[in-house]
Amino acid sequence: MINQEVDLSAELTLITSFQDADPMGVIYHGNYFRFFEEVRRLLMEKINYNYRDMIESGYAWPVIDSYVKYVRAIPFNHEIRITAKLTDWENYLRVEYVIYDANTGQRMTKGYTRQVAVDMKTEEMCFASPDLIKDKLEPYFVEK
Amino acid sequence: MINQEVDLSAELTLITSFQDADPMGVIYHGNYFRFFEEVRRLLMEKINYNYRDMIESGYAWPVIDSYVKYVRAIPFNHEIRITAKLTDWENYLRVEYVIYDANTGQRMTKGYTRQVAVDMKTEEMCFASPDLIKDKLEPYFVEK
Amino acid sequence: MINQEVDLSAELTLITSFQDADPMGVIYHGNYFRFFEEVRRLLMEKINYNYRDMIESGYAWPVIDSYVKYVRAIPFNHEIRITAKLTDWENYLRVEYVIYDANTGQRMTKGYTRQVAVDMKTEEMCFASPDLIKDKLEPYFVEK
Amino acid sequence: MINQEVDLSAELTLITSFQDADPMGVIYHGNYFRFFEEVRRLLMEKINYNYRDMIESGYAWPVIDSYVKYVRAIPFNHEIRITAKLTDWENYLRVEYVIYDANTGQRMTKGYTRQVAVDMKTEEMCFASPDLIKDKLEPYFVEK
Repeated sequence: MINQEVDLSAELTLITSFQDADPMGVIYHGNYFRFFEEVRRLLMEKINYNYRDMIESGYAWPVIDSYVKYVRAIPFNHEIRITAKLTDWENYLRVEYVIYDANTGQRMTKGYTRQVAVDMKTEEMCFASPDLIKDKLEPYFVEK
Repeated sequence: MINQEVDLSAELTLITSFQDADPMGVIYHGNYFRFFEEVRRLLMEKINYNYRDMIESGYAWPVIDSYVKYVRAIPFNHEIRITAKLTDWENYLRVEYVIYDANTGQRMTKGYTRQVAVDMKTEEMCFASPDLIKDKLEPYFVEK
Repeated sequence: MINQEVDLSAELTLITSFQDADPMGVIYHGNYFRFFEEVRRLLMEKINYNYRDMIESGYAWPVIDSYVKYVRAIPFNHEIRITAKLTDWENYLRVEYVIYDANTGQRMTKGYTRQVAVDMKTEEMCFASPDLIKDKLEPYFVEK
Repeated sequence: MINQEVDLSAELTLITSFQDADPMGVIYHGNYFRFFEEVRRLLMEKINYNYRDMIESGYAWPVIDSYVKYVRAIPFNHEIRITAKLTDWENYLRVEYVIYDANTGQRMTKGYTRQVAVDMKTEEMCFASPDLIKDKLEPYFVEK
């Protein structure tokens, strides 16, 4: 089967925190994962599959890789809009993120993470996402 | 029994990290717990009771309160010496911390944390530290 | 002058993050300062005195001490309500925090921070809060 | 001129912290930047160009992108060896990181960051690294 396209996305707006900024006055590059985490939480809740659901389903979903392109520095105490979109799901969950300046709409950051299913009993990595993912995503399938 | 005095302490020297500093160029006040955590880890290893040992022993040791007095701001990329000393153990583990400027010896921070035993089966808080603590501390008991 | 009483408080509700939890599945004790930071930001915005305003006013406001009483462990992915109240201002800004379980209303945490003004030119600590604080707080003064 | 090859690397060994682990008991994926930060600090000190030197030199060096491949989960309280190597410098500083299990030698993580010079006066990004970088790297140049 060819990877069925889905239309699943989430977004949120927040004000960046003083404590996430570094001495240059901008968000430290490692702290962007806080933003990704928060919007991915909203994304996964849309398909009723948060961290607790994952554990109950018998699968952990470790991140296998991540990429961030820091287009523009993000000051602290700055309003940003963060979007997440599921762009792949058959063998891994790939989520793409974009951060915008909430006021100007300017794109500040792009990035992605990929997660694979790990069977918590056998501790084996799954080469394909378990069927439950397909079931959960079905309401979000779109015609290509 | 009166609380038997112990002489158990640990220390370490490190260089503060850029990412733990805030836009004022000094370590963010919430990040001092990183320093306390690291030196408490060394302290607990002296009695062979690290986090994994705790879990195996059937007790969790949540922190019940913490206090920090920020005497002098700590810049990033600054060498500090952190000390920890166990100052109470019968009903809870109280650890006192002092941070010094590693070069001048000047005291920069004082603080403490207290942890109580929680029986992981019953999830009940223990009113007294379990006997295993006394056994582990015995080599460090001192005459009053 | 006797310390004029003020009625200035703020609150917010949020869902705790996976990444702020530790291997015991509950928010790491050092991460509570994230919650305090966020609600204090809202508190200070009520008197138009955020971090940028502080710097413009010529004063830094380092935290001089902090206390946290961890009454009940806070799980990750858990909705909490955080309140902040200014309880002293004449010589330092003392803010008291309470964290509640957003669903049951149960109190989970108490704490406070104190901040003093530091003149950014002289780098001297101010023994009394500068006059601008009194001016900003005036709308929040209450009859004793 | 063709990019002159350099042989500049650094490494360190540390024990992972409880507080950097998530509820799955392994280091949270966003916290790996702590490891990269620490070893990059050592790398940059070899050429006498730490954060303070950067600011004095008139250049900020924001990270423009980062990639992490999480090969094996890293438990907390686990000894790891982190290496950093400068693999490009003419237009940006590219640093490659590898994390090894300190006991088995097994590779656990790979990643890189790239940083570009930004002139702090004009706030303009530099298309080529400023000459001072070449001077600092000269002792580390190698024959191709």
